[in-house]
Amino acid sequence: MENQKLEMVADFYEYTMSNGYLLKNMENTIAYFDVFFRKVTDDGGYAIVAGLEQIINYIKNLKFTEDDINYLREQHKFSEQFLEYLQNFKFTGDIWAIPEGTVVFPNEPLLTVKAPIIEAQLLETMLLLTINHQSLIATKTSRIVREAQGRPVMEFGARRAHGINAAVDGARAAIIGGAVGTSCTLSAKEFNVPASGTMAHSWIQSFDSEYEAFKAYAEIYPEDCTLLIDTYNTIESGLPNAIKVFDNVLKPKGYRPKAVRLDSGDLAYLSKKVRQILDKAGYEDCKICATNSLDEHLIKSLIEQDAKIDLFGVGENLITAKSNPVFGGVYKLVALQKDGKMIPKIKVSENVAKVTNPSYKKVYRFYDKETNKAVADVITLADEEIDKNEYMIFDPENPWKKKVLKNYTVKPLQVKIFEKGKLIYHIPTLKEIAKYSKKDLDTIWDEIKRLENPHKYYVDLSKQLWILKNNMLNNIYF
Amino acid sequence: MENQKLEMVADFYEYTMSNGYLLKNMENTIAYFDVFFRKVTDDGGYAIVAGLEQIINYIKNLKFTEDDINYLREQHKFSEQFLEYLQNFKFTGDIWAIPEGTVVFPNEPLLTVKAPIIEAQLLETMLLLTINHQSLIATKTSRIVREAQGRPVMEFGARRAHGINAAVDGARAAIIGGAVGTSCTLSAKEFNVPASGTMAHSWIQSFDSEYEAFKAYAEIYPEDCTLLIDTYNTIESGLPNAIKVFDNVLKPKGYRPKAVRLDSGDLAYLSKKVRQILDKAGYEDCKICATNSLDEHLIKSLIEQDAKIDLFGVGENLITAKSNPVFGGVYKLVALQKDGKMIPKIKVSENVAKVTNPSYKKVYRFYDKETNKAVADVITLADEEIDKNEYMIFDPENPWKKKVLKNYTVKPLQVKIFEKGKLIYHIPTLKEIAKYSKKDLDTIWDEIKRLENPHKYYVDLSKQLWILKNNMLNNIYF
Repeated sequence: MENQKLEMVADFYEYTMSNGYLLKNMENTIAYFDVFFRKVTDDGGYAIVAGLEQIINYIKNLKFTEDDINYLREQHKFSEQFLEYLQNFKFTGDIWAIPEGTVVFPNEPLLTVKAPIIEAQLLETMLLLTINHQSLIATKTSRIVREAQGRPVMEFGARRAHGINAAVDGARAAIIGGAVGTSCTLSAKEFNVPASGTMAHSWIQSFDSEYEAFKAYAEIYPEDCTLLIDTYNTIESGLPNAIKVFDNVLKPKGYRPKAVRLDSGDLAYLSKKVRQILDKAGYEDCKICATNSLDEHLIKSLIEQDAKIDLFGVGENLITAKSNPVFGGVYKLVALQKDGKMIPKIKVSENVAKVTNPSYKKVYRFYDKETNKAVADVITLADEEIDKNEYMIFDPENPWKKKVLKNYTVKPLQVKIFEKGKLIYHIPTLKEIAKYSKKDLDTIWDEIKRLENPHKYYVDLSKQLWILKNNMLNNIYF
Repeated sequence: MENQKLEMVADFYEYTMSNGYLLKNMENTIAYFDVFFRKVTDDGGYAIVAGLEQIINYIKNLKFTEDDINYLREQHKFSEQFLEYLQNFKFTGDIWAIPEGTVVFPNEPLLTVKAPIIEAQLLETMLLLTINHQSLIATKTSRIVREAQGRPVMEFGARRAHGINAAVDGARAAIIGGAVGTSCTLSAKEFNVPASGTMAHSWIQSFDSEYEAFKAYAEIYPEDCTLLIDTYNTIESGLPNAIKVFDNVLKPKGYRPKAVRLDSGDLAYLSKKVRQILDKAGYEDCKICATNSLDEHLIKSLIEQDAKIDLFGVGENLITAKSNPVFGGVYKLVALQKDGKMIPKIKVSENVAKVTNPSYKKVYRFYDKETNKAVADVITLADEEIDKNEYMIFDPENPWKKKVLKNYTVKPLQVKIFEKGKLIYHIPTLKEIAKYSKKDLDTIWDEIKRLENPHKYYVDLSKQLWILKNNMLNNIYF
């Protein structure tokens, strides 16, 4: 959605704070902010990060118009010096991010901003809302796709999405999470992915009979004939009419039907019955597509019941992540740089799990050399070197739990996106991201990906980071 | 968000169907479609409809670009005749809608489209997603605002919203639902409502001490000084520092503090403690604002515990309607007009509650003349007259349950928005909508508005409509 004016999609406090930094001559203090989340949605074992492309476009195009400045002036809160600063605003900082489609875990810095504090502060809302939204949907879709066990999943939720971007960018995130297509035409067009959709009940109702409606559709789309068969009665009416049309319209012209779609009723029972009847009529190659409030649990149950469903269309439960619609990413100050010196910052909380990891950091993933499976992630201070042969990890909350890693390969998860305000990252296509994500998921053990009680993946702190954090906690005074 | 290109925010099947209507020479058949929902979210007793202004803007600006046409051509599914039709597309139909902010109930036609079927079909996704999203958030906000019992509620959720429109239009819907302001600057600017926000924890952490941070803020914003006091320790550090700054910075200049904000910990306990200490220090007029994963239930509980909170900032639970993030509005064909004759259409379902109400309809609300409270809504055929003195209503699912209404006033809920494609409705300002909504809510009995087991409001069918529906159901054959 290239034309959107996004510079004012910011919480108002970002302006009051930024104005304050300027008036207190702190605007050039370099700040480091991390984006991270604390808990995987749906009590899942992993998440899929997404949204980076939209963040890049936002930052690249970030400037304030006369109209914005006038609006802010009318609030009678901001200095002319600040308004002038905004007029000439340009992002000049560095950004590192974990590429879209990567499997990620709680507390990892998904994105790190190093910039003059006044700039870093103004990005907060857009960074969070973009990563939170798209990671939410990519993660939810990944769960659904996994339970479909290889059967294609299509995103059909636009009508229940929370506004236009939720539909369009949500469909994009669904593709990253493994959906093979979307019903949302704009999303298909913008991101060059397959658009799917054939007919609604209204098509069938607008003809004098179901048979007439099917016949008309088959005549127009003989190559891509999918018929919705539940408008009146699936087994007594829809399916017989569909088969009659396959026989009378498609067969004489040498076409095969593509699919029938079930949108109500007992999908396990109906799909088996429909499969039998289609097979008997000689349409073994006609697929069965199911829709109607599906989610990962329903799909799992349908497959366990041996339902004969070849494709799933998933709507509201995917596009709103209905069972848990908040990803929960936060944007926290982790360090300041003053007179060339790094000053780590920590946010304490009564809830120990909510205490932040201080300082400018990196995150590494270790893979077992034999299996090529990921064994652990380690968050380190940015300047640490990782030993290539042996590395001891330990649980940050229970440091006596130790484990020595050997025979691994290791890679940093973040890549540099902006350097001194300049984009230095080549944005992959959506297809490339989806392909990469699928490959990345293959490096994660099944035990971590399962729906129920997933195994907890190791995300540990380096010894140096752990010591820094503990020292800071021990030295807190007011 | 005026600049968005929305014409392709449509499910792909709308194009395949529309192309089909054209090729089958049905494009000029007049169709009636209703938007309605079947169940109130969160098992609530009422909903607030919203989104009409965005729908009007969408329809007014609806046209297809060369780029759109080329994209569709490349799908190799559409006739040149259809692509040419789209190139010259203009909505020519009529639309009736229940004004934004009105209290609405299941099965009522929130919006009715009368248009050539090819046009009506192309509007489906945008109408649904807009009404579904904004009614969802307006309804959720109304629940939250109600439980706050007069204390102002501010919308603070942008960072957890499902994309940009979810933040911006979501804030708009929150205002309709009764929120007094939003943290989202673009929304405040676009809709001319108050923007609120002061500081994040990062402001405090970027200074050498909490006191320095508060002092700097108070110096810059003495007239509007709200301090976030939970960064380190609310009672031991945040509050004493705040009071010191009130004493040392504000008082000498003759300013009073506006508020302190609590964002963590036990809000009931802390707010009482903070109130005591503020009062003792002579700041009885300093308000206490609370944030941190609030929703209607938490607010209700806080007030029951006599928490000393004057303002609530509500984020993720409001902006995602977390407890139930799907409004569930549908778009159903209810009639066709062929050769000047109305042909009602019905969609059957195994689930009786999902059977649609056929034909072109109106919906009326009856008010008791004494109390001015709403007593029932009745859905009728469009050409029925309502008797001004006596009206018998009955439960559509249990028609033996009858009740005679007397001594009422009655008004139609829908108003005409478009006539032959021309906008004939004066769009109210957001403030006007919010004011109207508050007034409309006052006409609803408290028993219908309560959170737990709300009383079910009567939405009945007129006798004529009921007979039509039953005749159609009895005559269904395949």
